[in-house]
Amino acid sequence: MRRVYLDHVATASVHPQVMEAMLPYFRDIFGNPQSLHDFGEEARGAIEEARGQVADLIGARREEIIFTSCGTESDNMALKGVALAHQKKGKHIITSQIEHHAIMHSARTLEKWGFDVTYLSVDGCGFVDPQDVEKAITKETILVSITHASNEIGTIEPIAEIGKITREKGVYFHIDAVQTAGQIPVDVNELGVDLLSLAAQGFYGPKGAGALYVRKGVRVTPLMDGGIQESGKRAGTENVPAIVGLGKAAELAQKEVVERIQHLEPLRDKLMKGLVERIDEVLITGHPQKRLPGHVSVCVRYIEGESMLMFLNMQGVAASSGSTCTSKALKASHVLAAIGIPAADAQGSLLFTLGQDNQEEDVDYVLEILPPIVQRLREMSPLYHKK
Amino acid sequence: MRRVYLDHVATASVHPQVMEAMLPYFRDIFGNPQSLHDFGEEARGAIEEARGQVADLIGARREEIIFTSCGTESDNMALKGVALAHQKKGKHIITSQIEHHAIMHSARTLEKWGFDVTYLSVDGCGFVDPQDVEKAITKETILVSITHASNEIGTIEPIAEIGKITREKGVYFHIDAVQTAGQIPVDVNELGVDLLSLAAQGFYGPKGAGALYVRKGVRVTPLMDGGIQESGKRAGTENVPAIVGLGKAAELAQKEVVERIQHLEPLRDKLMKGLVERIDEVLITGHPQKRLPGHVSVCVRYIEGESMLMFLNMQGVAASSGSTCTSKALKASHVLAAIGIPAADAQGSLLFTLGQDNQEEDVDYVLEILPPIVQRLREMSPLYHKK
Repeated sequence: MRRVYLDHVATASVHPQVMEAMLPYFRDIFGNPQSLHDFGEEARGAIEEARGQVADLIGARREEIIFTSCGTESDNMALKGVALAHQKKGKHIITSQIEHHAIMHSARTLEKWGFDVTYLSVDGCGFVDPQDVEKAITKETILVSITHASNEIGTIEPIAEIGKITREKGVYFHIDAVQTAGQIPVDVNELGVDLLSLAAQGFYGPKGAGALYVRKGVRVTPLMDGGIQESGKRAGTENVPAIVGLGKAAELAQKEVVERIQHLEPLRDKLMKGLVERIDEVLITGHPQKRLPGHVSVCVRYIEGESMLMFLNMQGVAASSGSTCTSKALKASHVLAAIGIPAADAQGSLLFTLGQDNQEEDVDYVLEILPPIVQRLREMSPLYHKK
Repeated sequence: MRRVYLDHVATASVHPQVMEAMLPYFRDIFGNPQSLHDFGEEARGAIEEARGQVADLIGARREEIIFTSCGTESDNMALKGVALAHQKKGKHIITSQIEHHAIMHSARTLEKWGFDVTYLSVDGCGFVDPQDVEKAITKETILVSITHASNEIGTIEPIAEIGKITREKGVYFHIDAVQTAGQIPVDVNELGVDLLSLAAQGFYGPKGAGALYVRKGVRVTPLMDGGIQESGKRAGTENVPAIVGLGKAAELAQKEVVERIQHLEPLRDKLMKGLVERIDEVLITGHPQKRLPGHVSVCVRYIEGESMLMFLNMQGVAASSGSTCTSKALKASHVLAAIGIPAADAQGSLLFTLGQDNQEEDVDYVLEILPPIVQRLREMSPLYHKK
């Protein structure tokens, strides 16, 4: 059976060149970077090279990159780390209603710890209004954290405009760039951000490798106490092969970003257009153009997303519904609610996220098999007959 | 030049069978275990198999294993997670003066958070006295955390005796088994522990893979908020290849543990004996027998450990000094201070930690090259001439 992977928002296959770069670091160059001998020295050299590659990807300085175990850890560290380090200045944090669970649930934890969190609403496309950020900032505000692009609806937020405001107001600005770093051009200075989370698996790097950019001078309390790794900001033996893989993936992404976007956007647009043309009552969620290059998100009315996923899977197509990280949770999406999608329609959420291995035939295949699946499910759906 | 790696306490080369087990999970079976399709299902199956393998290694149940990114994360999660979840019962925690930095610095953070921590002293061999644990427990005590074996001096602690006391007193008991799990037999029920930290790199598994055992019914507040991974206890996309590697390493360690110990102990004993015979004024630190099978730790008086490391390294031998995770920190060891080694002698700390690839020739080589190194360094040392 044909297998078509259209769930790149969840994870991706490691790039062959990334794999090749990582391989020597499991068995041959296996030292602990903190050790005072050649085995350690070799490993240390490798992670410092990777640090430079990651810094280059986002226009940062080498010493501003902290390696973590994943995007979720970076997000937790950004929110909790800034909150704990700066609570004497104030205990107010601003974020949005369409954040990834790693941000949303970290913010909830901060509320339990006595912080006050403002969750900004968004418009129907999922845009945060920079003016709302400005209005929400008080003397107590220490941090604004906004996603660069929502994993669920793909909308790319006006980060640079928000960055101007936070800078003017003297408030730290964190972005969750797990869905953008390595996928679209990202420059911390152009965007005016002070902290940025990224993860290697967003751009064909390995799982288990994330980074947090922390602008020089910004104090962050570590989440993980212990050894002196990562300038004392993240204890634990460095995951050398994963870090090397993250570095290589960053290098490749930087080189190929334009080419990758040029590959993905026509596929994305063909799929979006095709879905709307071939299936009745399909809503595109998020902004039709200002969105991630390979990201297609829709709500198919009168059916459950999960049922479509099952039928698609039976025909070899891997897609997702609602929030990637909680596919198995089957909860209603807070993001779709925030952009005003009625709960019933949100049930029919479907995400196709394209990657470099996908070709036009994959899009054609989905456009061929999905309409009959929808037809069949609607015939069985009491909701559809009641409409 | 001959290269002899004797720093297994810091990290080790990944076992060839572990490598083989991991490889398919980078590029072929690359799905996100949370995804609702076959790519996800395959990855999910793999991590659940690994969970069973890790559980079997320590006599636990599958659902009591939480995967983390390293031993340091497991230690942080144990201390902070239990503290935050049970602070209404009490805010007192007991640990020892010879803990790994991941425990020691987590305990210091808890002190900042308003917890009260007792740091138990140890005897000259590094043993915690179970009676001291008993005496230290108050109505406010919620957790006792003791290392199973010190990474610096190798002494194996009387965990089962302490476990009887904590059980009787109704206090949770965590052990840091990063140096023991997979290296000596470890059974959570025989030891009477409620939480246990382990790391794959302790037994020829990959870096970036740790686990925390949490006995059923013990509440732990997550360190990392976000998705629903690991039953909601550790958010973040599962590092599938690393987890598979941890599982395979656990399976191999369980099968081969006796054989591995039989390989290491004679090498260890030959090296310890040889060092004492061939070099004047060498102190063995830790207990001479009740210690990790491949662990040799000494203090060579009148010289600095770092100088010996450099000279050893020039002759191809990788060893360590003081605490592994802070070799580069070059701080005086809190562990050596706790067992009563004078600060001047602690400077001459030297660790040789053997692994399965080491052979008797490696020991012979060290015994051949170290005495002249010591001789030469002492000739240059004002301390030696003043003695």
